[in-house]
Amino acid sequence: MNIIDIIAKKRDGKELSEEEIKYFIEEYTANRIEDYQAAALVMAIYINRMSYRETKDLTMAMANSGDILDLSKLGENVVDKHSTGGVGDKVTLILAPLIASLGIPVAKMSGRGLGFTGGTADKIEAIPGYNTSISEKDFIDNVKKIGISLITQTLNLAPADKKIYALRDTIACTESIPLIASSIMSKKIASGANKIVLDVTCGYGAFMKNLEQAEELSKTMIEIGKLANRETICIITDMNEPLGYAVGNSLEVIEAINFLNGDMPEDLKDVVIELGAYMIKLAGKGDNIEENKNKLLENIKNGKAYNKFVELVQNQGGDISYLEDVNKFEKATIIKEVRAEEEGYIKEINAETIGKISCDLGAGRKTKSDKIDLTVGIVLHKKVGDYTKKGELIATVYANNEEKANYAEKEILNTYKIGQEKVTKKTVIEIIS
Amino acid sequence: MNIIDIIAKKRDGKELSEEEIKYFIEEYTANRIEDYQAAALVMAIYINRMSYRETKDLTMAMANSGDILDLSKLGENVVDKHSTGGVGDKVTLILAPLIASLGIPVAKMSGRGLGFTGGTADKIEAIPGYNTSISEKDFIDNVKKIGISLITQTLNLAPADKKIYALRDTIACTESIPLIASSIMSKKIASGANKIVLDVTCGYGAFMKNLEQAEELSKTMIEIGKLANRETICIITDMNEPLGYAVGNSLEVIEAINFLNGDMPEDLKDVVIELGAYMIKLAGKGDNIEENKNKLLENIKNGKAYNKFVELVQNQGGDISYLEDVNKFEKATIIKEVRAEEEGYIKEINAETIGKISCDLGAGRKTKSDKIDLTVGIVLHKKVGDYTKKGELIATVYANNEEKANYAEKEILNTYKIGQEKVTKKTVIEIIS
Repeated sequence: MNIIDIIAKKRDGKELSEEEIKYFIEEYTANRIEDYQAAALVMAIYINRMSYRETKDLTMAMANSGDILDLSKLGENVVDKHSTGGVGDKVTLILAPLIASLGIPVAKMSGRGLGFTGGTADKIEAIPGYNTSISEKDFIDNVKKIGISLITQTLNLAPADKKIYALRDTIACTESIPLIASSIMSKKIASGANKIVLDVTCGYGAFMKNLEQAEELSKTMIEIGKLANRETICIITDMNEPLGYAVGNSLEVIEAINFLNGDMPEDLKDVVIELGAYMIKLAGKGDNIEENKNKLLENIKNGKAYNKFVELVQNQGGDISYLEDVNKFEKATIIKEVRAEEEGYIKEINAETIGKISCDLGAGRKTKSDKIDLTVGIVLHKKVGDYTKKGELIATVYANNEEKANYAEKEILNTYKIGQEKVTKKTVIEIIS
Repeated sequence: MNIIDIIAKKRDGKELSEEEIKYFIEEYTANRIEDYQAAALVMAIYINRMSYRETKDLTMAMANSGDILDLSKLGENVVDKHSTGGVGDKVTLILAPLIASLGIPVAKMSGRGLGFTGGTADKIEAIPGYNTSISEKDFIDNVKKIGISLITQTLNLAPADKKIYALRDTIACTESIPLIASSIMSKKIASGANKIVLDVTCGYGAFMKNLEQAEELSKTMIEIGKLANRETICIITDMNEPLGYAVGNSLEVIEAINFLNGDMPEDLKDVVIELGAYMIKLAGKGDNIEENKNKLLENIKNGKAYNKFVELVQNQGGDISYLEDVNKFEKATIIKEVRAEEEGYIKEINAETIGKISCDLGAGRKTKSDKIDLTVGIVLHKKVGDYTKKGELIATVYANNEEKANYAEKEILNTYKIGQEKVTKKTVIEIIS
């Protein structure tokens, strides 16, 4: 077998065999295939696409390229969730303790972010003392002990995916359905899940800009799941505007804490409860989605979910007094109010623009080595569908730099589109399984 | 302008602008674009192709990436010829002095070969003393003095083409019409020609395996020529079987000398005379092709072409006693006769197979640093259409290794296909202008 023949085959639009895909992934991970050869193959895959079978084989080869976390000690069904990314996405911070509060083990490895804000691992570190870097053994022991642990990726999970992902970024091959699908699924499989609920975001602030693409990505991941024997459900959600009100690291942690205390923004609640209901189902703890939703809402109401979060933070060394009083979180030095310039219904808040503003303020990383400013970000007060008067408060900017704060204000005003007609919206768009 | 946007544009099948193509070539030549980015773009070009206009812009950008030889001192029309490659191709060795003998200046830079046999520059070095590495000034002075010089490429001609050519080889992107066409035309333009006759070979031993591809390549190069203001004519010739009888470096030089002395194999004669007639036309020395052919044949007959070759060799330090007595050329140590195993008409001799056997014997380079054995090769005695009896001599192997000689004999017998029906053939297939 040789890489030139493999490249030629995909160049001509033919289907690669499992052996050919394994060969490419193994040899490329071992640096025995050059980056320029991988680049040519990836471009050929982008243009000529891959069948479901090829995508599944690529997924499994990438999953097997590094460590595979064995979570079988936690039970037969290990359920995980993943989002294809968005702005204001604090779902994991809420769902993890909520699910654990129902007695379903949650062993969650989260990434650090590269983009609009930090990843879940960055966000939870806004709680002083919280240790995201613990050993694999402690991780599993924690789940056994209290039913939950949330850490950053310490293992060498799917290194082939990391290499290919970095390469795709430099050769205009990020937006390929088979490559996105195999990247997501390989990481989920390597991190030990055998049941997967995927939040497939769709809109301005997501990879998938329209419903058609989101549906295609969903179907691809579900087919991979079937072929790889990992039951998968996709929930397509709106990401035209940010999710919830807060965008920024500690601002989102505060919103998550408030949510667990019963203060639930409507769109965020829809996503959390929908995803959670399907996680319960896949965990084998309830087939009736409506009943599952009620169980989740019940555990918010009775405080069990919040208490599980407190237990998680305490168990991982975090200072729980910050949960008890969210005013303890360090504040940005500049707090700037943004007020509506006209009256009417909010018809659009571009999530991508809000994400970029937040990143410019310092909440996200532009390169891997950038340090995140946990305090900065934006809190929206009006969302799509809301009515505002002229001069009413629509957003608050949290910044540590005057110039950036002024720029953020200007950009936020630009991205709020206000009209005279009522607007209806739907956050959970479609369930695909 | 940035390379990722350019890659994305070609990935989506759009047409690149002249500025985008120039940017890519300039930055890649200067090593400011990575090989993996170039590889992705080249694959996108392979799959999504290029318009004539893009191909012309790529050609000019590559031609301008290094030195440009200025041959304007030699006259208004500087005509050059080029072959897309084949087995037994000694046309340049014959045509250069033949054209020069008609008073048309010939300033010929030839490459070294990588493949079946050496290039023209390697072959002519089989004449002891012949110096192919002279300065640009001496090269032009020689043409002014005796009307001809033939050297190897000493200038830094089209370095972008060299880089891209080497890359294409490793990423299964050699067989792309726009990339082949721009590679050939960029080198011709950089080496100073403004009128170009191209021998587009077609068949087993050529890049273009069928007439359709050869026609497409021809049309592409003619269009580039038009857009780049370099009049170009393509002559499609058969390369299913080797051209002439000899394959190997000194063996081909001997055949060329014999040709100039009037001993002309039919197929080789057809190609030489056809190409030559169009070179005369493009040089502005005669519009009537039949008359031009007669002039060429006349100068073989009257010895002027041979005398011009002697003058060329002498002027460049070569020992002309080898021309006077071709038996002086060093011989391979093993000379093995190959005899027909059955009676009938030769219906096929695969040129690619003969080329590979010749390369295995040592006549060609497999990698750039390989040394060529000038003495080895194959002389065919029967060609397609000839009749052979069982046991009759069909080829002679010249080798310096017993094992290789035996292997060559076996392979030659395998590649000679003999049938009972008469075979007709045509070497010059089509003229495209």
